[in-house]
Amino acid sequence: MRRVAMVGAGMTQFGELFHLGIKDMLPMAVGEAVASVDKGFDRGDIGAAWFGELVSTDGFASGILADSCGLLDIPVSHLENACATGNDAVRHGVMAIASGMYDVVLVVGADKVRETSTRTTFWDWMGMTRDSAWDFPLGLVAPANFALHVNRYLHESPATREHMAMVAVKNHRHGVSNPKAQLRFEITIEQVLNAPMVVEPFGLFDCTPQSDGAAAVILVAEDVVDRYTDRPVWVRGVGLGVDRVMHAHKRDMTTFPPTVKAAKQAYAMAGVGPGDIDVAECHDCFTGVELINYEDLGFCERFGAHKLVEAGETSVGGRIPVNPSGGLKAKGHPPGATGVAQCVELFEQLRGDASNQVDGARVALAHNIGGPTAVSAVTILGTARGG
Amino acid sequence: MRRVAMVGAGMTQFGELFHLGIKDMLPMAVGEAVASVDKGFDRGDIGAAWFGELVSTDGFASGILADSCGLLDIPVSHLENACATGNDAVRHGVMAIASGMYDVVLVVGADKVRETSTRTTFWDWMGMTRDSAWDFPLGLVAPANFALHVNRYLHESPATREHMAMVAVKNHRHGVSNPKAQLRFEITIEQVLNAPMVVEPFGLFDCTPQSDGAAAVILVAEDVVDRYTDRPVWVRGVGLGVDRVMHAHKRDMTTFPPTVKAAKQAYAMAGVGPGDIDVAECHDCFTGVELINYEDLGFCERFGAHKLVEAGETSVGGRIPVNPSGGLKAKGHPPGATGVAQCVELFEQLRGDASNQVDGARVALAHNIGGPTAVSAVTILGTARGG
Repeated sequence: MRRVAMVGAGMTQFGELFHLGIKDMLPMAVGEAVASVDKGFDRGDIGAAWFGELVSTDGFASGILADSCGLLDIPVSHLENACATGNDAVRHGVMAIASGMYDVVLVVGADKVRETSTRTTFWDWMGMTRDSAWDFPLGLVAPANFALHVNRYLHESPATREHMAMVAVKNHRHGVSNPKAQLRFEITIEQVLNAPMVVEPFGLFDCTPQSDGAAAVILVAEDVVDRYTDRPVWVRGVGLGVDRVMHAHKRDMTTFPPTVKAAKQAYAMAGVGPGDIDVAECHDCFTGVELINYEDLGFCERFGAHKLVEAGETSVGGRIPVNPSGGLKAKGHPPGATGVAQCVELFEQLRGDASNQVDGARVALAHNIGGPTAVSAVTILGTARGG
Repeated sequence: MRRVAMVGAGMTQFGELFHLGIKDMLPMAVGEAVASVDKGFDRGDIGAAWFGELVSTDGFASGILADSCGLLDIPVSHLENACATGNDAVRHGVMAIASGMYDVVLVVGADKVRETSTRTTFWDWMGMTRDSAWDFPLGLVAPANFALHVNRYLHESPATREHMAMVAVKNHRHGVSNPKAQLRFEITIEQVLNAPMVVEPFGLFDCTPQSDGAAAVILVAEDVVDRYTDRPVWVRGVGLGVDRVMHAHKRDMTTFPPTVKAAKQAYAMAGVGPGDIDVAECHDCFTGVELINYEDLGFCERFGAHKLVEAGETSVGGRIPVNPSGGLKAKGHPPGATGVAQCVELFEQLRGDASNQVDGARVALAHNIGGPTAVSAVTILGTARGG
């Protein structure tokens, strides 16, 4: 297969961006990605583009990207895969280049959660990311959805709410140095445990904030990479896994099968294993979910996640730092942008340019789990081109 | 580039399917596609799937496809590109196989326009396919949108409302023999011209009906095609073009630049020109739009479309039959399904199995124009593998 490199990456601030619309954020993220290309970049080189967005606030999604970023002479498509949208969009960029149809593609993700249009309410939003005929009318909004899993996980594994709190404390600490993060302040275990309850077992600080934001990456074929940079980041592997939509059909609430499937595909394609990962950005929409992710991604054995976080192994400075950007928890979570922004962070990590740098990082993993825990996307990046 | 063949195709009846949900229609279309594979087909062979849908009635789109069709061990993605969704989904299937990542993929399109969920109104629907901040609040729903173009076209070209009526009469006549068509009755020029006005210059019979339906095609790599059939249909070319979203920014209302761009890409990839097309399914959402399509696709010179329809050249039996299935006008138009269903029709045409067969068809073209006339997708199919 034709190999694919990431040569540019950029993102907006994540946060409550009431002063910015989608049409403002898209050019900001794309502009930063273009400016990050070492040897300069002509937008006319872009052969095709993908826009990952969950819910349109401004209407026709692919047209809005094309129009606001001056991409009128190339194909532009809109992709949606719940909270796995961002890394699935990257996967599509990789396929497009590997196919030989395009040498250079743009992958953009964005969402405005803090401003829904007059016609699209927050509840449309929630309904479209789960089974809206059955689970959703019964109250299965995102926090309730993940709470079903994490309650069972706390019951079956030795992990406790304290371990969940350690995840929040770690990710907030990581986010302090990230200028793009939404919540740049440290918190304590006590604050997490004593915060108002959202839904058992998630207190306020166990939950990601709701965010607006956009992120963009530029992917190119191995044949042309030298035109753009001497220090590319290679997309070594991509994977996407799915599962049944309704919670009545899940066989084991303590694991997310889509993550296991997506990771298996991505590891195989990259020719690496969990032990090769130097740094990861994984989907900590709720603290307990990050613990389950450690296990599903193979960073530790089943029900061993609490030991990892207890020992500080997933902190920057530890064996396998997770969410050095602050993660969804502190950096923020505009769903369409999240996976792309994870790749922006890892692009910087692998080039030694990150705000919270993991020393000597050479192989990195990005991960989303989304929808009714029914889809996951994994991207593996590396400094080496791969065999 | 690795070549791609279509080996199976199926669709549901199009119509007001109040008795069927998305979860019913998807397995019906996929089941028919699977059953159409000459040498048999094992669903376990499918490596990845794409679901084209504009607006979800049942929630999380890719999960609903995976769940209802038993596709839980492969990547499934949801794609949306307004009314160009179907042919863009086919384009994604082609890229996926060409990339070498998958040998066999499933491409499905579906929508339920006649049943929107309690949370998604028809107006959300309309808003998401145009600029919902500017054009849409001013009243630019689909008929008004296309009427702006066709009014100007009638002003600048020699075409008249009678020529538009000839398109309606032709497509209704074509649809009579199609068991999957929604409106299986003939109409007369007088009926079209005397029908109640929807929006000047579109009377009732100038407009496509609103429809529910699903369609599916199975694509495979050239390396494995012999396992499935001895008479494959080859995907010779794909293209996608975009344009500015807002009508204030359109430079010429008498042509659709996205169609011209998409057709140019698809013709170049296929190594054919408009003169090579034996049969076409093109986007007749409103009769006058079919006339503009003839010109944008290169079937005739600028402002020459009226001569084509007047001379019966686009009727079955004519030089270049357009919409032998009945088109959107008579077959129906569930937007996510429409482009895929065009390919289903052309798959049958190229294998000599169509209900309204075009004798000796060897090269065929499918075309959508969608959104605020800001996106078009074109697929070129052929009986020959191509050079």
